[in-house]
Amino acid sequence: MSSTRCAVCKYFRRRCPSDCVFAPCFPPDNPQRFTCVHRIYGASNIGKMLEVINLECNLVPLSILTELPMHLRVDAVDSLYYEAKWRIQEPVYGCVGIISSLHRQIHIAQTQLAKARAETAFLRANVVAAKTMPSSGEFMAQQNSIDNGLDDQSNP
Amino acid sequence: MSSTRCAVCKYFRRRCPSDCVFAPCFPPDNPQRFTCVHRIYGASNIGKMLEVINLECNLVPLSILTELPMHLRVDAVDSLYYEAKWRIQEPVYGCVGIISSLHRQIHIAQTQLAKARAETAFLRANVVAAKTMPSSGEFMAQQNSIDNGLDDQSNP
Repeated sequence: MSSTRCAVCKYFRRRCPSDCVFAPCFPPDNPQRFTCVHRIYGASNIGKMLEVINLECNLVPLSILTELPMHLRVDAVDSLYYEAKWRIQEPVYGCVGIISSLHRQIHIAQTQLAKARAETAFLRANVVAAKTMPSSGEFMAQQNSIDNGLDDQSNP
Repeated sequence: MSSTRCAVCKYFRRRCPSDCVFAPCFPPDNPQRFTCVHRIYGASNIGKMLEVINLECNLVPLSILTELPMHLRVDAVDSLYYEAKWRIQEPVYGCVGIISSLHRQIHIAQTQLAKARAETAFLRANVVAAKTMPSSGEFMAQQNSIDNGLDDQSNP
């Protein structure tokens, strides 16, 4: 029995071969990772799911994930671990609670963005109006000129 | 054997009692709901998870979810079904893929919001400046008044 067994082999108290397929996904220093995933999905379901990934990737559906590219194997177990952790923490809603919360955040951000853009459009129109229309001061200056019988050529 | 067995009892080809705890969560007209959940979690894990919810709610941990309020039972199975469906559709990332995508959407919306707010602040300052500073037309009107020796009382 190896002294550096992976978390799965350690959990099942079995020998961990040098080419153990679980070893890269479940290192011995993080036994919690396998405990979580095992508690929610069960070891045989994890094996089945990883086999499905092999099929999806058009790889030989070996009994276990030897043909799956390493980064996909690790990503799959990462995402299973994430979901399992949330299911343990939030037994009723799990990850779906996060998804609902994120949808609400997006809705709020998009509403605020729509408001900010409407305000920007309004202000842009105001800036243009303020630059092209005579101001109250200008209007009074024109009035003074007219009152004094001057022909104001600058404001036709 | 009842002719209106729930999807779980139908799946296991067993009698569905009138007080079957699975019946409200797995109606017979949606067998896919149980098939999905069963494929990812396994029936015994679903039972265990629902039992955990009983414990979380400080209810008597009966062997199965008889003490859990109905809406929480249905919500729990709804969220398990949602996660299972996504895991079948996206075997590597499952629900976590949606969460990553929503985080990206929030980041984009917040960046756009920050830009829109900065533009709003800039435009507001412009509107104030345009309203308080004399415009080129006004400046020329003032110049005309001065050139004509008039005391323009409207622009001190």
